[in-house]
Amino acid sequence: MKDVAEYRDLSGAGLSIGGYLLERLQDHGVGHVFGIPGDYVLSFYTMLEESPIEAVGCTREDCAGFAADAYARVHGMGALCVTYCVGGLSVCNSVAGAYAEKSPVVMITGSPGLRERIHNPLLHHMVRNWRTQYDVFEKLCVAGAELSDPLTAFREIDRVLATCKRFSRPVYLEIPRDMVHVVPNAGPRFELPKVQSDPEALEEAAEETAARIRAARQPVLLLGVEVHRFGLQDLALRLAESAGIPIAATMLGKGVVPETHPLYMGLYEGALGRAEVTKYVEGSDCVLMLGTFMTDINLGIYTANLSLGDCIYATSEELRVRRHHYHGVRLEDFLKRLVDKAPRPTQSPPPAPTESSQREFTLQPDEALSVTRLIERLDEQLSGDTVVIADIGDSLFASTELTTHGSTEFISPAYYTSMGFATPATLGACVARPEARVVALVGDGAFQMTGMEFSSLARRGAKAVVIVMDNGGYHTERLLHPGDYRFNSIQPWAFSQIPELVGGGKGYEVRTEGEFDAALRAAWADDSGPSLIHARLTGEPSQALRKLGARMQRTVVGE
Amino acid sequence: MKDVAEYRDLSGAGLSIGGYLLERLQDHGVGHVFGIPGDYVLSFYTMLEESPIEAVGCTREDCAGFAADAYARVHGMGALCVTYCVGGLSVCNSVAGAYAEKSPVVMITGSPGLRERIHNPLLHHMVRNWRTQYDVFEKLCVAGAELSDPLTAFREIDRVLATCKRFSRPVYLEIPRDMVHVVPNAGPRFELPKVQSDPEALEEAAEETAARIRAARQPVLLLGVEVHRFGLQDLALRLAESAGIPIAATMLGKGVVPETHPLYMGLYEGALGRAEVTKYVEGSDCVLMLGTFMTDINLGIYTANLSLGDCIYATSEELRVRRHHYHGVRLEDFLKRLVDKAPRPTQSPPPAPTESSQREFTLQPDEALSVTRLIERLDEQLSGDTVVIADIGDSLFASTELTTHGSTEFISPAYYTSMGFATPATLGACVARPEARVVALVGDGAFQMTGMEFSSLARRGAKAVVIVMDNGGYHTERLLHPGDYRFNSIQPWAFSQIPELVGGGKGYEVRTEGEFDAALRAAWADDSGPSLIHARLTGEPSQALRKLGARMQRTVVGE
Repeated sequence: MKDVAEYRDLSGAGLSIGGYLLERLQDHGVGHVFGIPGDYVLSFYTMLEESPIEAVGCTREDCAGFAADAYARVHGMGALCVTYCVGGLSVCNSVAGAYAEKSPVVMITGSPGLRERIHNPLLHHMVRNWRTQYDVFEKLCVAGAELSDPLTAFREIDRVLATCKRFSRPVYLEIPRDMVHVVPNAGPRFELPKVQSDPEALEEAAEETAARIRAARQPVLLLGVEVHRFGLQDLALRLAESAGIPIAATMLGKGVVPETHPLYMGLYEGALGRAEVTKYVEGSDCVLMLGTFMTDINLGIYTANLSLGDCIYATSEELRVRRHHYHGVRLEDFLKRLVDKAPRPTQSPPPAPTESSQREFTLQPDEALSVTRLIERLDEQLSGDTVVIADIGDSLFASTELTTHGSTEFISPAYYTSMGFATPATLGACVARPEARVVALVGDGAFQMTGMEFSSLARRGAKAVVIVMDNGGYHTERLLHPGDYRFNSIQPWAFSQIPELVGGGKGYEVRTEGEFDAALRAAWADDSGPSLIHARLTGEPSQALRKLGARMQRTVVGE
Repeated sequence: MKDVAEYRDLSGAGLSIGGYLLERLQDHGVGHVFGIPGDYVLSFYTMLEESPIEAVGCTREDCAGFAADAYARVHGMGALCVTYCVGGLSVCNSVAGAYAEKSPVVMITGSPGLRERIHNPLLHHMVRNWRTQYDVFEKLCVAGAELSDPLTAFREIDRVLATCKRFSRPVYLEIPRDMVHVVPNAGPRFELPKVQSDPEALEEAAEETAARIRAARQPVLLLGVEVHRFGLQDLALRLAESAGIPIAATMLGKGVVPETHPLYMGLYEGALGRAEVTKYVEGSDCVLMLGTFMTDINLGIYTANLSLGDCIYATSEELRVRRHHYHGVRLEDFLKRLVDKAPRPTQSPPPAPTESSQREFTLQPDEALSVTRLIERLDEQLSGDTVVIADIGDSLFASTELTTHGSTEFISPAYYTSMGFATPATLGACVARPEARVVALVGDGAFQMTGMEFSSLARRGAKAVVIVMDNGGYHTERLLHPGDYRFNSIQPWAFSQIPELVGGGKGYEVRTEGEFDAALRAAWADDSGPSLIHARLTGEPSQALRKLGARMQRTVVGE
């Protein structure tokens, strides 16, 4: 591998546009780029392969997008690299998910060379005009640039990457293939203007919030995923610990703090969640919501019963105390100032339901395996360095009962809820944290969408465990809209044969608790490559999904 | 199944918006809709399942898009139905391909109910705002509508479907889930204003063209895919036959007329194609190009050597004779008027290379199988009612040597060149023409993208033959950009195990000509379900790919 500095030699003067992008990606901590090459991006791909950054190949572009998203969630910034239109337009959904859930993903794409465009020919991969792909991603990214002018290319790269970081959302960079090796006369670097909090507004907001905490009868900290995205976990814990405030998290924020923390109560999901947590949170006269997305799913499909007059709502986008808004107060500054003030309730709050709810699990080896029991057994297994990735449907709803602890992380598309996220995301997490055990929970329908990315896990010998939770089709939809509809059926696959087919990993097929237990033990003990456990489940849904179904039936039929 | 008329009963008055859409789709000949249900589209999906239209399930949304595209190419109009954003944004690339190659696909998508949007909540599947998905497809479709107003919904459906038909390009229809059952006070239907040719311009253009044909020394008809899209095959043949003009076709137009027709010479691909055809076409003093896309690939990557002064260029978008343009002349009118005039060259043109080039194929059973020999053997097999679908790379380049005859059709994304088109497109073609034998040619890299859609072929018991042409990775890229790059390698799969994995069809693995011959015979004799032939090929590329690689090497590295 060449050092990035060597790209300076390409012209003997300075860095080329492609070389500069590679250098800046590394400055932002990107060590891997997921993607698939194609002719419009071959020149950049070649440069990438010769750089210290590793190009991780995937079977499909959208999988590369999901992998880059998961890598970003675990690692801080992720990147994918695909060819023009046929590649780029295949990652729209993955990039949209990163936008919705604030994951900092850099999408890099090649395009026809500027010299090829002169007579406006119909080049292959073109849709409507040269700009179509850019126009589409303008809707799905927080910033973008076409690197077609050497005068501005470096500054555009700086600006776009800085914006990715600041907003923790995807960005778009397009390089015409004849610009990759162009060496500009490098101008001054672009610095995104530093955003400062308005000091008076910050002080007033922090003081008002501190006063409300001191005066509160039963304060609660409700944490969202932004606390993780912006690296505020330690600050949030310091606030909770110094004030002695119990903590709950939203579904998308699950695992933001270790769930074995003595102040942690569990997930708050309105009527869908555990009754004692719901009761404590909704009984609070001071709910401090930090970095929370107020989505339908986070709010338990609107079963949340929180009074605005009791809430302080602080995110990277807004700060609201009860019904008034502060402008110009950054989330991190607000949290720091609040920690400095170390507010503590003057009266002792009532005891919170923080006792770890981990029940003793007694294996019933001959019992048919249900999703609930599968999760309880898996919960036992989690320890130390694990990353759990849940796909949507009952993979997500049931796994809210898992307890993350130690440095375990929990990743799920719990807001955008794109089916098929988990298997390619597992690749991203394995690449970002090769030492960790990554466990994917994915339904049979979701697996049919993207599960063949197991191939890339096998290719890397990644020690992932992919659990296919087979409930015979689009089961969540059956609960949302009961009836015997053919469209909820899918072709049954013999999933456990996949490792043999793709030439790596081990496959298991299980129907009982005993068989699952044995397969999970074997998979956990195996560091040589990925395992795929095909769990044939009873049709019994988790309690959370059952509650959700009952709640949503009228809405989904359009009533 | 209910008759559409029964939807009138939903309110007792007239059709609901969903019911009207289903009726109008049938008016346009749509008998099948490809897709995957999801909660925002469940109400419409339920109505669809109870209608005479069959909902064909797929493993992934983009596959449903490719299937609908192929169905449209074979059948006239195709449709897909997916849920909001996570479904819709997964079909961007498939819809873009249909746009680029003029395939009339109707994309139907659900969205959150209007009543759910009132307080602007963050509903799951949302990206940036309610409009994001619409904004994206505005770039990829020729028309679109959000059916959110009962007053205009029927007229919008009429307008959008008529536009799909007229331009033979994809359109977008979004139905908020609470609008599906709404019964509007139906107003008058919307009629797209009829476009008429300017009669004087039409007459002048036809007469000038006829005169040029009469005076020509060596006229040639060069046919493109629009001749098929707009149903002009018979007219084109009548023109050629009455005038005795030899015919060539572009790569994207391959199979537009039966390649065994006595006037047919072969594909014209500039320096990439057969020398005798190139020589005859480029030696012509009157090239009548009908419905041809002037793309880089159709023009043999700009090796075409056609003099504008000798060309008449007539498409659905423009009409150009030499260097002057006629406005307001419709392709069909132009062709009809030309046929009426029955122009015939006054002097006899020199003999054209129209003799069918089908060589006798002599099997060499123990020889390792090359892509060229595979195509030659397959060519022997084609007869009667076959649809050949070629993916990109050498699947496409090599298969230009196939001879389509009888009612054989040839389908390929030869302009947009999206990898992974062929297997899901095979599903679409099988649904559109269940009596036909559909053969897919697909590379190993392309198959890893979408090939698991073989599952849906197995589910239907479709008698398709999928040939995986395994040349060990992204082989076309190796020829475009020689060098031992890791990014061109992929994980090798045991493709022939897929039928067992997905629970249907038969798998074969072949390495020699004899093994391929036996597998092809067995697959052809089998009407019980799909076959998958894993052909392990020698690395030897086709002649066309070799020429292409040599031509493109400097461009792809950005020089």
